[in-house]
Amino acid sequence: MANFGFSRLAVVAPFEAHWREAKSAVGAEGLLKEAKCTERLAEAVADCTLVVGTGTLDRRKAEQRVVSLRDLGPRIGAELKRCGRVALVFGQEKRGLTRENLALCHLLATIPTDERQPSMNLGQAVAVCLYELARGESRPDTVQDPRAESATAGELELLAKLVAEAMAAANYSPAAMKKVNRHGVQLLLRRLHLNSHDARRVLGLFRRILWKLKV
Amino acid sequence: MANFGFSRLAVVAPFEAHWREAKSAVGAEGLLKEAKCTERLAEAVADCTLVVGTGTLDRRKAEQRVVSLRDLGPRIGAELKRCGRVALVFGQEKRGLTRENLALCHLLATIPTDERQPSMNLGQAVAVCLYELARGESRPDTVQDPRAESATAGELELLAKLVAEAMAAANYSPAAMKKVNRHGVQLLLRRLHLNSHDARRVLGLFRRILWKLKV
Repeated sequence: MANFGFSRLAVVAPFEAHWREAKSAVGAEGLLKEAKCTERLAEAVADCTLVVGTGTLDRRKAEQRVVSLRDLGPRIGAELKRCGRVALVFGQEKRGLTRENLALCHLLATIPTDERQPSMNLGQAVAVCLYELARGESRPDTVQDPRAESATAGELELLAKLVAEAMAAANYSPAAMKKVNRHGVQLLLRRLHLNSHDARRVLGLFRRILWKLKV
Repeated sequence: MANFGFSRLAVVAPFEAHWREAKSAVGAEGLLKEAKCTERLAEAVADCTLVVGTGTLDRRKAEQRVVSLRDLGPRIGAELKRCGRVALVFGQEKRGLTRENLALCHLLATIPTDERQPSMNLGQAVAVCLYELARGESRPDTVQDPRAESATAGELELLAKLVAEAMAAANYSPAAMKKVNRHGVQLLLRRLHLNSHDARRVLGLFRRILWKLKV
């Protein structure tokens, strides 16, 4: 991270003993010392407007839009240009990101690896992604996007929660489907690319619906 | 290496105990098993026509042409197009490539790292370089270079040796300067980008000169 000028690290539910003893490379001590540590990914990315998962797609089908790493720079550049905050999310070395964590991502960026050896070492995957972002094509020449600031991951999660509650309260489908529906709503909300103003409007609407359904 | 489809590894003067116990990532066992192990870098790259050193230039001034990593792809692509063989050389993690090893390189490729943290982890540096080469811009659209095949590193080293011997035999400069001159000749020969035909011609010339000087 320090090699490519990135400084904000968040660690989600680390194995306590390892995290306590984690050592940084010489010169990058501040990065670890300032790292945010949270129990869940949703907290770590709550203030972000674009959450990008990373991984290879060897065995599963992606549920969100997939971009190749080399196309990620311009997308992130556009988001930063309208003052968004971007998170790049890496999963565990062995299993990658869980389905639950992927549901919090707007996009999935894949590193174009050889199909015979798709799975990368975590540190190397991070280095390759940050190199690509620092490579200098992250500044698109397109004109400023006229949309307002994007909704944050925190707003989207709150909205997903309210929508799921509304579904349950309205007996939208059998209780057994609750988890599946919740997951579907998470994905849907991220496909929409709501801006912050819209998100607050929809939140208000669902608060109102829930209130109605429960009286 | 396996992640980005590279398969020919050579290891120079490894620390014996570590090398014996080296383990590859799952799925890349062949890479280590087939690795060439040599005592000196010159042997490892003897059959190569383009030898590229890697590193950061934080404390020293380069003695050969320096290219940024993102410009390396087209250069290597051109070499491969005229059937050359390319070596990418990485130094020890702590000290990088020695001056002696750099003298065997035609080019020095630098990874554009943050100036406050220029030194990279070796595995991450390799991953970033191979990602860049696999990234897909290594196939230049330029027409086939009309020059014959480039001289190999082995031919250049033999030539450097003969030229240095000729210098000594001709009392070109004091004996104390021998090492400095040898180094200078190594660099010079690589700047010239001799093709194989030219290299053999110059070799023949210097053999002749040496023979003359020694009779």
